[in-house]
Amino acid sequence: MTRTIDTRATFSYIGSVLKYLSAAMLVPLLVGAIYGEDAWVFAASMAIGVAAGVALERLDPDPDLGPREGLAVVSLAWLAAAALGAIPYVLAGYGTASALGHPVNALFESTSGFTTTGATALAEISFDRHSHAVLMWRQLTQWLGGMGIIVLMIAILPELAVNGAQLMRSEAPGPELQKLTPRIAETARALWVIYVAFTGVLVAVLYALHLLGLAPNMGLYNAIAHGFSTLPTGGFSPEADSIAAFSPVVQWTFVPFMVVAGVNFALFWYVLRDEATELFENTEFRVYVGAVALLSAVLAVTLFRGGAPATELGGVTAGVTENALRQGVFQIASLLNSTGFATANFAQWETHTKFLLLLAMFVGGSAGSTGGGIKVIRWLILFKTLRRELYTTANPDVVRPVRLGGEVVDEEVIRGILVFTLLYFLVFAFSAVFIELDTTRVGEPLTGVEALAASLATIGNIGPGLGPLGPFGTYEMLPDTTKLLMVVLMWLGRLEIVPVLAVFISAVDDR
Amino acid sequence: MTRTIDTRATFSYIGSVLKYLSAAMLVPLLVGAIYGEDAWVFAASMAIGVAAGVALERLDPDPDLGPREGLAVVSLAWLAAAALGAIPYVLAGYGTASALGHPVNALFESTSGFTTTGATALAEISFDRHSHAVLMWRQLTQWLGGMGIIVLMIAILPELAVNGAQLMRSEAPGPELQKLTPRIAETARALWVIYVAFTGVLVAVLYALHLLGLAPNMGLYNAIAHGFSTLPTGGFSPEADSIAAFSPVVQWTFVPFMVVAGVNFALFWYVLRDEATELFENTEFRVYVGAVALLSAVLAVTLFRGGAPATELGGVTAGVTENALRQGVFQIASLLNSTGFATANFAQWETHTKFLLLLAMFVGGSAGSTGGGIKVIRWLILFKTLRRELYTTANPDVVRPVRLGGEVVDEEVIRGILVFTLLYFLVFAFSAVFIELDTTRVGEPLTGVEALAASLATIGNIGPGLGPLGPFGTYEMLPDTTKLLMVVLMWLGRLEIVPVLAVFISAVDDR
Ligand SMILES: [K+]
Ligand SMILES: [K+]
Repeated sequence: MTRTIDTRATFSYIGSVLKYLSAAMLVPLLVGAIYGEDAWVFAASMAIGVAAGVALERLDPDPDLGPREGLAVVSLAWLAAAALGAIPYVLAGYGTASALGHPVNALFESTSGFTTTGATALAEISFDRHSHAVLMWRQLTQWLGGMGIIVLMIAILPELAVNGAQLMRSEAPGPELQKLTPRIAETARALWVIYVAFTGVLVAVLYALHLLGLAPNMGLYNAIAHGFSTLPTGGFSPEADSIAAFSPVVQWTFVPFMVVAGVNFALFWYVLRDEATELFENTEFRVYVGAVALLSAVLAVTLFRGGAPATELGGVTAGVTENALRQGVFQIASLLNSTGFATANFAQWETHTKFLLLLAMFVGGSAGSTGGGIKVIRWLILFKTLRRELYTTANPDVVRPVRLGGEVVDEEVIRGILVFTLLYFLVFAFSAVFIELDTTRVGEPLTGVEALAASLATIGNIGPGLGPLGPFGTYEMLPDTTKLLMVVLMWLGRLEIVPVLAVFISAVDDR
Repeated sequence: MTRTIDTRATFSYIGSVLKYLSAAMLVPLLVGAIYGEDAWVFAASMAIGVAAGVALERLDPDPDLGPREGLAVVSLAWLAAAALGAIPYVLAGYGTASALGHPVNALFESTSGFTTTGATALAEISFDRHSHAVLMWRQLTQWLGGMGIIVLMIAILPELAVNGAQLMRSEAPGPELQKLTPRIAETARALWVIYVAFTGVLVAVLYALHLLGLAPNMGLYNAIAHGFSTLPTGGFSPEADSIAAFSPVVQWTFVPFMVVAGVNFALFWYVLRDEATELFENTEFRVYVGAVALLSAVLAVTLFRGGAPATELGGVTAGVTENALRQGVFQIASLLNSTGFATANFAQWETHTKFLLLLAMFVGGSAGSTGGGIKVIRWLILFKTLRRELYTTANPDVVRPVRLGGEVVDEEVIRGILVFTLLYFLVFAFSAVFIELDTTRVGEPLTGVEALAASLATIGNIGPGLGPLGPFGTYEMLPDTTKLLMVVLMWLGRLEIVPVLAVFISAVDDR
């Protein structure tokens, strides 16, 4: 068996991805038309994308994928999307005051969008500097990325009957969607219906609040823009002040939708079929909701007791019940599952309060959600496995399988989770060291915790970090080397590390 | 099969440990006699220790140990030793200005010694405040702890034919000492000869430097005291300024001995038998020495280029070749394998320089050495395993064992290493969060990096941390709750986490 990768088949698939993605640029084209903005940027980008896509497709008109090619397509698809998405940024930003004129910033912003990270390289977010079309494209990239992730995690990876399946069996000991809809296309469609429906409801609710006079600045543009970044756990906002720009009622409105974004979308399928008990009895769902509730309560109490100084955005929380509760719940609902919206500048909070946020940021969403990070199900299986290993150390004659929700978890899956989690910690830690040394090199050192938070915010696809990289800050002033590392981190994190490194190591070892 | 632990047999063994340890108090008794200090503290402690030991031994005159009891004895032995060692501290400190009058400080200091950590709870290290006998006992606890660790790791754990062996097979894919000396007692004796010999040589060299006039303040007391803390990778010093108190030639003298302390002691057995190639061809040895050399060079260059401000202790390193080199080599040789001596106040260095130190602190010593931390061999097997797992993800039809030094590493060992490493990271991270919250609670918050360093310094048995817990600082001002957590961390770290938690989980699960 020759161990080479079929690059023609691989790039042919990437071509298709580019072609369809280019069609999505009709949205910013339309927005530009409505606001009377120059349309050539997106027209040109679309032309480039379609041309490149069709050319690549011609490499292999009838591509056939093995496990390696499957992993390569999945890995490269996000990079290709990021590159395509950066084209209109560069075209629009070139020669203007926008940071996007610099290709590294454009690639960073596009990667951040498609990976639903939400870390921004913009120095200033405003319509003075960017067109409505560009800022809507920025929002849309997240929504498209989220759509891709759901299908990837629930439909594609399990079909690659490899350790890609190892990755996936690890994620869906819950409902097996295959039973419900036998083919990938159908599965994808079912999930997209749910994804689109939640987005539609959120946009409608936000706009209704506006019409009712409860959200003066939540016009149709903003409602759609935030709809595009909530369900994918994205976190971009066309408002420089993120969700702090809106009234408390709007802030509360986001909370349930953010929580939903971190839930396994396959579970909602059962709800639609009147089998809601499948949702409420799901172990991962219960632990996820429990973790949000617990950490929200702890953070709210901490804020109430003076865990944060009064700030311009976010106001006074010490001793003010509603505000402490809202800030606590919102920030945890946002950071735990990697959304990254903010209603307060938590970069200015006390150290111990920030530590609670970092703790939440290590949790992650559920399997089969758009959330990033380590994820609840991995933590669950990890703790059960550690407990099993410790018990059998003292009782070597005992055989004890790991169970979740009544079912035995495959040992292969367990090994996959151990490997993923260690890789996650290692990449996170070494990247933090690199970021610290690199920012020092250019004379703009971050503090130690800021470097750690920056690494976590990107590999975990969270978005905001601490210090100058906080929720109302920007990654723009970082050196290009660090920004490029972060592009890699966002990419690795979004694809759950293993597929990307597997293709890479495999290519290196078989040279 | 009843799953209960034979507590009588367990405590009988602990009794023997206490009895023999009490005999070691003859050393401080002698020191006290020489310096004309009050002898009753150690006489009383010895009496208590012997009485308690004999009483416990009577619980079961002919104890028989299974795997569980073996793990329990190993786990409890260090706690019992720490408790015994704290008695003279409390007796001597009570009613004086010494911090040791407070039992939590005394337990902290004693645990820190027996686990060869070297973190101190003393507010002031001087003969004004502590007798020569007490400060020598403090040194001796480390030497005894190191002796225990070598025997535990190379002789006892592999004999417990359990996952204790899992832990151990993981540590000695190198030489199998069993082949050389068939029984535990003989193995222990062989290793102790090496340990005592290295200590003796160091003491002789240090004192010779003194006699030659090259080390005015390295009298016999100091030579012996530092001999007691080098080979066990301890780090305590009766000098408040640690090794910065001595001349550059003394500082250089320590370097090779510190490096040796992090090497698998079984390898020196081969050297004694004229098979030195076994040492030089050992993979772990080469990687360990390579890591020390590489990180020393990087740190020296960083210091030379201005990575640290001029400090009272340690002086100017920017642009001063000898000093930058010495500070770089010394600090890495000391921190990488968890010794914890210092010749400069690295707590005052620049953030990026401190990050290099933290990186070194994550490495650890070699298997079968007195060094703490994750350890070189685990990193080696971990990286090889991750590479294997990634390769087989893309090539699911391939079976590929992990090899080290030409031999296949058992899959059981690999799983043990994955479990250990994850437990290490988890305990480290959660403890850092606890330390941050707890120090904030009492109004003396550490910075984020200081909290992380404090957690790492204790679970890694390193000793010095950053900020107020730096090499010339003290842990004394920390709240008791944090100090007690650190007692647990030092204990867990020294026993490589698994045996302690295995006994605990096993007891909980079988209630
Ligand atoms: K995000
Ligand atoms: K130490």
